[in-house]
Amino acid sequence: MGNSSFLLVLYLSFIVLGTCDYLLDQEKDKIDELPGQPTNVDFSQYSGYVTVNQQSGRALFYWLTESPTNRDPKSRPLLLWLNGGPGCSSVAYGAAEEIGPLHINSDGKTLFINPYSWNKLANLLFLESPAGVGYSYSNTTSDLYTAGDARTAEDSYAFLLNWFERFPQYKHRDFYITGESYAGHYVPQLSQIIYERNKGVKNPIINFKGFMVGNAVTDDYNDYVGTFEYWWTHGLISDSTYKSLQTTCEGGSSEHPPIACIRALNTAESEQGNIDPYSIYTKPCNYSSSLKRRGRYPWIRGAYDPCTEKYSNEYFNLPEVQKAFHANITKVSYPWKTCSDIVGSYWGDSPLSMLPIYKELIAAGLRVWVFSGDTDSVVPITATRYSLDALNLSTIANWYPWYDNGKVAGWSQIYEGLTFVTVTGAGHEVPLHRPRQAFILVRSFLENKPMQRSLNSI
Amino acid sequence: MGNSSFLLVLYLSFIVLGTCDYLLDQEKDKIDELPGQPTNVDFSQYSGYVTVNQQSGRALFYWLTESPTNRDPKSRPLLLWLNGGPGCSSVAYGAAEEIGPLHINSDGKTLFINPYSWNKLANLLFLESPAGVGYSYSNTTSDLYTAGDARTAEDSYAFLLNWFERFPQYKHRDFYITGESYAGHYVPQLSQIIYERNKGVKNPIINFKGFMVGNAVTDDYNDYVGTFEYWWTHGLISDSTYKSLQTTCEGGSSEHPPIACIRALNTAESEQGNIDPYSIYTKPCNYSSSLKRRGRYPWIRGAYDPCTEKYSNEYFNLPEVQKAFHANITKVSYPWKTCSDIVGSYWGDSPLSMLPIYKELIAAGLRVWVFSGDTDSVVPITATRYSLDALNLSTIANWYPWYDNGKVAGWSQIYEGLTFVTVTGAGHEVPLHRPRQAFILVRSFLENKPMQRSLNSI
Repeated sequence: MGNSSFLLVLYLSFIVLGTCDYLLDQEKDKIDELPGQPTNVDFSQYSGYVTVNQQSGRALFYWLTESPTNRDPKSRPLLLWLNGGPGCSSVAYGAAEEIGPLHINSDGKTLFINPYSWNKLANLLFLESPAGVGYSYSNTTSDLYTAGDARTAEDSYAFLLNWFERFPQYKHRDFYITGESYAGHYVPQLSQIIYERNKGVKNPIINFKGFMVGNAVTDDYNDYVGTFEYWWTHGLISDSTYKSLQTTCEGGSSEHPPIACIRALNTAESEQGNIDPYSIYTKPCNYSSSLKRRGRYPWIRGAYDPCTEKYSNEYFNLPEVQKAFHANITKVSYPWKTCSDIVGSYWGDSPLSMLPIYKELIAAGLRVWVFSGDTDSVVPITATRYSLDALNLSTIANWYPWYDNGKVAGWSQIYEGLTFVTVTGAGHEVPLHRPRQAFILVRSFLENKPMQRSLNSI
Repeated sequence: MGNSSFLLVLYLSFIVLGTCDYLLDQEKDKIDELPGQPTNVDFSQYSGYVTVNQQSGRALFYWLTESPTNRDPKSRPLLLWLNGGPGCSSVAYGAAEEIGPLHINSDGKTLFINPYSWNKLANLLFLESPAGVGYSYSNTTSDLYTAGDARTAEDSYAFLLNWFERFPQYKHRDFYITGESYAGHYVPQLSQIIYERNKGVKNPIINFKGFMVGNAVTDDYNDYVGTFEYWWTHGLISDSTYKSLQTTCEGGSSEHPPIACIRALNTAESEQGNIDPYSIYTKPCNYSSSLKRRGRYPWIRGAYDPCTEKYSNEYFNLPEVQKAFHANITKVSYPWKTCSDIVGSYWGDSPLSMLPIYKELIAAGLRVWVFSGDTDSVVPITATRYSLDALNLSTIANWYPWYDNGKVAGWSQIYEGLTFVTVTGAGHEVPLHRPRQAFILVRSFLENKPMQRSLNSI
């Protein structure tokens, strides 16, 4: 029986039986097979659109990759992953480069299984947010020029409410939110909305347990202080630029810095030269020589490839891929991009600090974890350390190394209400650079267990 | 003709001809062949002892590796390399791991050619200093317990005077001193003695042109400030330990820290865990698993091997190796070691700052270069930056990235009278971690040319 006749039978059955529409909606969103996917895909996937604003015609695209069938997906929590930017796609980064089960080969056409995918531990929901990012769209073009933190959080919340109606089997399931970079804003903001709207509800549909963010924009003042210190102590900028950054930027907004600060940031960028700021000790992707590079290092298959974004740009623009994803159904006039320049450039409201939300949610007893790859110069470890220090939390376990296979994989500090974990040698996208260590990290987070002080841990 | 009968003929010729003894001394020091050396050794080598104090019986061991015969060694400068510790061997590190032409295979028995050896550019003189270090010895055992900066410098100077008598072909040749770590003391101190004793001499035997040091102990106050900041900003220590290091160590001596500072340093070490502090993002040598490691990565031959010290410990203790080196002729009761614990532990005088010597030698117009591998936590880049800043030199070229093969290899700042160069991704032993970049660096130093701002540079 073909897919369309199956759907017809299913639909007729629903009418006859007078039963629920959501199964049909799920069936519509089910991904039969992604172009170029390997044969050993042992998990279900769904993707499609959820309208979050009828009037404007804003619809957000999601990709759900469930846990493998032999790992009892029904018993496992739901984990929402968000990327930042603002303007960057969770499909491009979180799903296809970092924690998702299917990554893209360098041909831009075929996929391979990520052995350290977080879907082994949780059902993963990737959301492209806000409208204008990735496949997510708005029928009101001006929406792309007026995005900001508040609407992003409200739209994401509207997405969740509708999504849980489409996937009621996930209602009341343990639910976590994770993300990185500017999702350091999205994650706590969305968490706060969920927490506050759950208040007084006995058995909430969105059974929110906590959040985890990595290399996260958190508190503009402390982020600035820590970032500039990181650049100087890692030898990336001159003494004079260090000083001018401090005098022109500190106190300003990271999303809307003063002109003099922008000038100093440009000088800093020029002094840094052609490095990969997201991973300062690895080579940047050189598009023209990427084939040569692959030719020279055939053995590092699966190791960090700085050109992964390029493969995303190819794969997610293939018409057959978009069809399989039930994506781009409105045929927008611009291609799918890893990050939307428009959304990013015109970003609106961006509060200076997430720390008040941290305080509120910590006090509420929610699980809050923060991690940091220590070779990222964009939202560096020092920025996060200063920001967390500003919370003035009591320490339960002071800074200690955590181990994987007998080797130091990073450090951790356990505060009253918050756990901080670093991953050494990892850049901005921790699960991209250190997939195995990131897997151990999320497992500890989900199990609410401290990072191990020694010996084997996987 | 066997070696001994050749020597006899040579000796008799000298008597008959009434000519110079030094050729005989050189011939005695000539290395015929080192055990396990490859077939393509295309340079001359000499090694042996130079007595620096008759009364105590202190004799320093040297190893001279000249430039390859097809690179006109006679036209090339002489470069003295010193390792620090205090107590560590220049043969173990500089020669066998870093800049020397012959490195040791993992079998501890055979040698291979280092393709980036600095002997392609200069004749290299490795000195094990002071007495008690490596093969260097004293007939007065107490000398090992009373070593310090001043005697090390004077003994090294005495060594040079005598060595130039044995190798008069190097008299008046351009002469440079380089070294790393605690040689940040030895190099400027020896430089100062040479400079001052050359004063007023028209055509000095030791034709001293300048010095270059890497990851160098320079100025205890600024080194402490920068080291602790490095540890914190690289996520190696807790906030509380950072604070206690600052309050207990700063202002003290790096060689003789106060007790409370030693306690804080121990806490810091324990927080850092089992990392390689000399190269914080690479795996430490695990002696038991080194064979496995080699088996897993057969393709990285020539790449950084954290177990090189182990191979030195085997090779330089082989009786046939010591014979070939004309070493250990007094049959000392202890084995050759990479670093002498006794010399290091009992170290005496250690001035707080080398900066006055920098000022004197810069004012004298000598060439002074400083470099830093930026992933070393022992004498880190921040320590060096603070120390150099304290010189208050005018800037000629502000912090800029230098390139090798189109990729950022580090940064450089050119001051009036001093050039600072960083090597990115390199640990404490820059030429071990980044041999090609270190070669470009020493070539620029010898040519007195700034590091290149772009494009290919080798």
